Amino acid sequence: MLRTDRQFADLLHLAKAKRIPVHIEPPPVFDRLVPSGHHQGVIALIAAKFYDTTEQILEQAKTRGEPPFLVLLDGVEDPHNLGAVLRTAEAAGVHGVFIPERRAVGLTSVVAKVSAGALDHISVGRVGNLIRLIQSLKETGLWVYGLDPQANKLHTDIDLTGPIALVLGGEGEGIRSSVLGECDDRIRIRMQGRVQSLNVSAAAAVALFEVVRQRRGGAV
Amino acid sequence: MLRTDRQFADLLHLAKAKRIPVHIEPPPVFDRLVPSGHHQGVIALIAAKFYDTTEQILEQAKTRGEPPFLVLLDGVEDPHNLGAVLRTAEAAGVHGVFIPERRAVGLTSVVAKVSAGALDHISVGRVGNLIRLIQSLKETGLWVYGLDPQANKLHTDIDLTGPIALVLGGEGEGIRSSVLGECDDRIRIRMQGRVQSLNVSAAAAVALFEVVRQRRGGAV
Repeated sequence: MLRTDRQFADLLHLAKAKRIPVHIEPPPVFDRLVPSGHHQGVIALIAAKFYDTTEQILEQAKTRGEPPFLVLLDGVEDPHNLGAVLRTAEAAGVHGVFIPERRAVGLTSVVAKVSAGALDHISVGRVGNLIRLIQSLKETGLWVYGLDPQANKLHTDIDLTGPIALVLGGEGEGIRSSVLGECDDRIRIRMQGRVQSLNVSAAAAVALFEVVRQRRGGAV
Repeated sequence: MLRTDRQFADLLHLAKAKRIPVHIEPPPVFDRLVPSGHHQGVIALIAAKFYDTTEQILEQAKTRGEPPFLVLLDGVEDPHNLGAVLRTAEAAGVHGVFIPERRAVGLTSVVAKVSAGALDHISVGRVGNLIRLIQSLKETGLWVYGLDPQANKLHTDIDLTGPIALVLGGEGEGIRSSVLGECDDRIRIRMQGRVQSLNVSAAAAVALFEVVRQRRGGAV
């Protein structure tokens, strides 16, 4: 039964003002979403996690008094990998991880679970156009490095203590060439074995904790 | 139909000499194992991967002219984690990874798949008693470090260029205290976030590639 009381009218008004979409649904939908039946004719659906804006993320670095330390993911499509990268990034003190709207997995319950709680503490930004984000970060003074197995420079050979963003590619394809082309430089992790690549979450762990080492006074 | 020819008799004799167990099975077993029917009345079952002895693994370090660089896993029970650690260890040039006979996953097809081919190139040892292995490695001149979140020293503060074995604990419990007590020293990875631990495969990536960095001339 659709409510017609004043409180309900106020709620609808407020939702409209805040641009929150409102759907009128039949009773079976309510029964499915709230099997206990304990509702008052209104259900609010909220995301497991809110995305942050680039400004909010950069502001965090400022608040902490640290040079910005960001991670940009170009097409990580496996929720386990995304969760693992978020966990590692949080542990490394990254200020924010950006994921593209397309060619990427969202912040699902699997991602949250694999992140082992890190999702609650790390800022995540969602961008429509990764290239435009890189351009704007460069204008803000950040150095943007693409992690690329074909790079000439090693990740341990460059100074990572300044304001930086690290771009990591997804499974298989790696970073798209259009995105790589926008980076200030490319770096690679030195492979010592026969298998010529690391899983994206392992590569993230290696690169992000090299930043931690350098920022804590370790020599390059 | 059981073969009675000379070739078959020779095969049985050879198997006995090599201490390979032989089972006589009825036709349905053959049909199940070889659905195509293309067999000659004999099926050999071999392991996906042979385990190496400690001597073979240390010999490899010698052949490569490198100080031994080993990984000991104390109870990694998730095949995804084991596969991920093996992949990372191979990429870091580790000479061998030891897994305990108990409290650990074996080298299953999932492990092989997650290792992305690394399982074919990395030596794996299997030990009944991890503590005894640590004792014998110490006698051989290796330094054995346990990766432990409660350690005082950071992994980046110690010299990892000599002959070493790194002990990593499994999910949840970490390294057993009896095993930790046998290590020469404990080291930890500096955590910069709110979540106070890394996944074992991420911790392995961070620690193993710090060894690579130092061995390639990077300063401590």
